[in-house]
Amino acid sequence: MAKILTLTLNPALDLTVRLARLEPGAVNRSETMLTHAAGKGVNVAQVLADLGHDVSVGGFLGDANPQAFDALIAHRGFGDAFVRVPGETRSNIKIAEQDGRVTDINAPGPLVSDEAQKALLKRIAMIGPQFDAVVVAGSLPRGVSPQWFQGLLQQLKDLGLKVALDTSGEALRAGLQAGPWLVKPNTEELAEALEGSTDAISRLHQHGVEHVVVSDGAAGVTWYCPGAALHATPPKVAVASTVGAGDSLLAGMLHGLLSDEAPEQTLRRATAIAAMAVTQIGFGISDDAQLAQLENGVVVRALTEQ
Amino acid sequence: MAKILTLTLNPALDLTVRLARLEPGAVNRSETMLTHAAGKGVNVAQVLADLGHDVSVGGFLGDANPQAFDALIAHRGFGDAFVRVPGETRSNIKIAEQDGRVTDINAPGPLVSDEAQKALLKRIAMIGPQFDAVVVAGSLPRGVSPQWFQGLLQQLKDLGLKVALDTSGEALRAGLQAGPWLVKPNTEELAEALEGSTDAISRLHQHGVEHVVVSDGAAGVTWYCPGAALHATPPKVAVASTVGAGDSLLAGMLHGLLSDEAPEQTLRRATAIAAMAVTQIGFGISDDAQLAQLENGVVVRALTEQ
Repeated sequence: MAKILTLTLNPALDLTVRLARLEPGAVNRSETMLTHAAGKGVNVAQVLADLGHDVSVGGFLGDANPQAFDALIAHRGFGDAFVRVPGETRSNIKIAEQDGRVTDINAPGPLVSDEAQKALLKRIAMIGPQFDAVVVAGSLPRGVSPQWFQGLLQQLKDLGLKVALDTSGEALRAGLQAGPWLVKPNTEELAEALEGSTDAISRLHQHGVEHVVVSDGAAGVTWYCPGAALHATPPKVAVASTVGAGDSLLAGMLHGLLSDEAPEQTLRRATAIAAMAVTQIGFGISDDAQLAQLENGVVVRALTEQ
Repeated sequence: MAKILTLTLNPALDLTVRLARLEPGAVNRSETMLTHAAGKGVNVAQVLADLGHDVSVGGFLGDANPQAFDALIAHRGFGDAFVRVPGETRSNIKIAEQDGRVTDINAPGPLVSDEAQKALLKRIAMIGPQFDAVVVAGSLPRGVSPQWFQGLLQQLKDLGLKVALDTSGEALRAGLQAGPWLVKPNTEELAEALEGSTDAISRLHQHGVEHVVVSDGAAGVTWYCPGAALHATPPKVAVASTVGAGDSLLAGMLHGLLSDEAPEQTLRRATAIAAMAVTQIGFGISDDAQLAQLENGVVVRALTEQ
């Protein structure tokens, strides 16, 4: 069991609406509408808790609508390292139609002041040393610069924490400068962050990144660490929803690495946990027998070294 | 100043999203997303408060997401007569595009148990006598039958309250049986409730309904009371949003009637308050000078008696 902090700087309330068919310009009646506390770090935290770890969650949370987060934190027994900021945590609306089409409407988060940013750094300085690892995941809220973000990662690293980073765009580019222990981009995010560099992986290793976990949906996962590379292909599964699949993969990788499991088993289980998320409307490890079956279906092979 | 209770049995959180253009099946980024405590009775309460009345709000409220309602109640100084029920108050999503098209997605409310229904009747029995009038507005939540609704209206009437009803469909049909003091259907709701009866208004008067206020959008408002009928045509205004216009009309009518204003002035101001709501994204009386100007633009005429 490891002690892990996840930071979500721009969490979201996921509002999932089910409709037979979305009719733009009309009054649509939905049979179900569910609100969940979400955001990449919060999702990772839940899967880590399913895997038995001692988890705290932090970042910035709007003080006008914290209830779903407060309820999740209480229900899961998470440590609470969120700095409250004025305004509403954003809502991300997911409109799921019967034919499988999903329309997302994502709102901006609250504006995060310099004071709130300082308060988070201060809290991390206080509580950071007690953790084995920290996951920093998701987009940057309004008011937070890539430079500040890079400084946050540097602080976490200086505290002796293993830093796992999952973000994209400018935040990923800035974050890589801090040389996190692990990064989990998907294929497009990696290409964008490295601007098509041909020796992407060795450049990351040069930056001090030990583990590069590249997800490519149903095509599988490639894991590069110094001197080795493994690829895993998940079993074919019926797709219910890909929400939380990447977060599940990240949680699974952390679990294996922090538990000192064999590399092949680490990647196998992480890939199976992600595949399991895909079979569900939600995500998380609800059925150990199903997980074992999915693990058996994962094909792991060593790649020629990069 | 009158003391008025408004009951909203199925309130909603209005989640208004602005988008340049809704692209179904894609990730849409919204610049603004605003949550408001809403529901017809809650809207009427706000306009009544703007008009200087002493207002309490009640009905059923989901206990999982009451914050926007709690904040509104505190901010407005409303009396709180809501019975809390397990679950989430529904969200009504309004997606407003730049070209003016609005897509609504309305969710069902929480299931309201028999116990909660009894609790509301009990609370009303206790607090009811202190009010001059009660507004019962909006749809019925899951679990509440039209028969129970009719009984609620009867209880309110038996307590000596002037009952103003604004609903539709089965709830309106059942509610009319209780003979409320005032009803405010729109043209379609009236036709549906009375199944195309040719002497609709006299049938309502026979049921004990004193005031029938029929709204027909930009075509205006017709007000039937025993022995008289008035019609008001609003001035032409630029439409920003029709949200809350009907609720504003109802609040304006109550204001005039409970303040014993002359009928012509009652209808004139109520029509102007509704027109003012149409010019706003929200509603409410934010500008007395604009309201006076709109009042001057309302044309009121007597109709031949029905």
